[in-house]
Amino acid sequence: MAPALLQAVEKSKPGLQQVGSVALVGAGPGARDLITLRGVQRLQESDVIFYDRLVDPEILDLARPSAERIYVGKAPGSHHWPQKKTSQALVSFAARGKRVVRLKCGDPGVFARGAEEINALDAAGIPYEIVPGVTAASAASAALDGFLTERGTCDTLVLATGQTAKEEGNTGWIAQLQPGTRIAIYMGVGAAENIANELIDAGLDTQVSIDIVSRAQQSDQVTAKCRASTMLDTIETYRISNPAIMFLTWPKSKTPEKSQSTVKEFR
Amino acid sequence: MAPALLQAVEKSKPGLQQVGSVALVGAGPGARDLITLRGVQRLQESDVIFYDRLVDPEILDLARPSAERIYVGKAPGSHHWPQKKTSQALVSFAARGKRVVRLKCGDPGVFARGAEEINALDAAGIPYEIVPGVTAASAASAALDGFLTERGTCDTLVLATGQTAKEEGNTGWIAQLQPGTRIAIYMGVGAAENIANELIDAGLDTQVSIDIVSRAQQSDQVTAKCRASTMLDTIETYRISNPAIMFLTWPKSKTPEKSQSTVKEFR
Repeated sequence: MAPALLQAVEKSKPGLQQVGSVALVGAGPGARDLITLRGVQRLQESDVIFYDRLVDPEILDLARPSAERIYVGKAPGSHHWPQKKTSQALVSFAARGKRVVRLKCGDPGVFARGAEEINALDAAGIPYEIVPGVTAASAASAALDGFLTERGTCDTLVLATGQTAKEEGNTGWIAQLQPGTRIAIYMGVGAAENIANELIDAGLDTQVSIDIVSRAQQSDQVTAKCRASTMLDTIETYRISNPAIMFLTWPKSKTPEKSQSTVKEFR
Repeated sequence: MAPALLQAVEKSKPGLQQVGSVALVGAGPGARDLITLRGVQRLQESDVIFYDRLVDPEILDLARPSAERIYVGKAPGSHHWPQKKTSQALVSFAARGKRVVRLKCGDPGVFARGAEEINALDAAGIPYEIVPGVTAASAASAALDGFLTERGTCDTLVLATGQTAKEEGNTGWIAQLQPGTRIAIYMGVGAAENIANELIDAGLDTQVSIDIVSRAQQSDQVTAKCRASTMLDTIETYRISNPAIMFLTWPKSKTPEKSQSTVKEFR
């Protein structure tokens, strides 16, 4: 096993991380083995790693023991680094010739709020690279033994956030929920009441099925299936919390199913 | 480097692949180092691997040398395995006690058409597992040094296909293109004329910026930036072809930019 893996990582493209640069690396959805080979390679090259709350601490074991590990996590309601401080620290370490990894859970492109960091790096002339990762919706869908899109039934996938769903007057997501569409709402549990009400008000309680996957691919994963009318009860009864993906599925030309709830705790 | 990597793969969760089962593994968007550690582990456990046209052949080097490799690719217009034959082969090998990997490019959940395979496995009582991967849109966005979502500017991401965009009377994607939305159209180049016309007819030529990334993260990657009115010329001039991701971006409350085209060939 060793030679193939080592060869794979050593032949990692494009090139090795430069001295004095930043790699924004997707750590994947949490499970330590859902990071990419390129992500591992960057961890092993890095001098300093900035990481978030949702990154599996075991992923940090993949870095060189000598790499400095700096927690910049943002637990809701508790002390954390302001975004500006994180951005400045990335610039400052890279400007001193360090190979910096900014480890973000999931894919750095999806709801990871890297714009301010990139802008700071650009302004300071620091080279950077984005290493894509497995986004939480992919992991959650796989955990349900299913697919995000299904040809002819659900050809379009929308990714949105609980924040979007909560904003007053923001009805974007409900307008985008058409027959043949699945919406994956990231961090949707906090917006559950709003989401349920919007669905019910739109008359979609029977057409739209709901799957919630909390902590996908982790040892305390929980999955639940419900309808808008049973969603709040389901969340309360099974104490489902964020981080979670809430899938709203409106299949094309399908007879509405009977309302039902099922919950499965992990494995 | 070796011990951490080996330990990472050996501790791969959940468990090792069972004898007589199928793992649908996301190979990532093409570059060999964008597969996950769990994907590598499944390749190294497998007795037989079924793979597609878009999978980087170098990824197969990560499997055990003794694993049987079976090409079931579907080059447009040429001879290929019918879907039914592939599904039956998965069942047949697993039923004979083999550990089977069905390697799919990107994430098996996104436009990978695995439903028929899963249905066949379910019908035959063969256990299966889906190993998520990095989807092409994430890789393409990273190749542009950008993000798929941008807080406050582009909070919603829609994934659609060229097939959806081509279907007569299917105006789903254009209705979903609202301010604050980015649409990633997979295999969009074949539907370019239709897409350009829909955008122009909707009066969106200046509001919606277009980025096309062909063969993201591969050595022959091409990226292009254009508008609906210049898209067909851009595609023809630079001979951009599928596999490609076409991003249509309609930012929130932003002054329309001047129409302009730029093209960058890889690195």
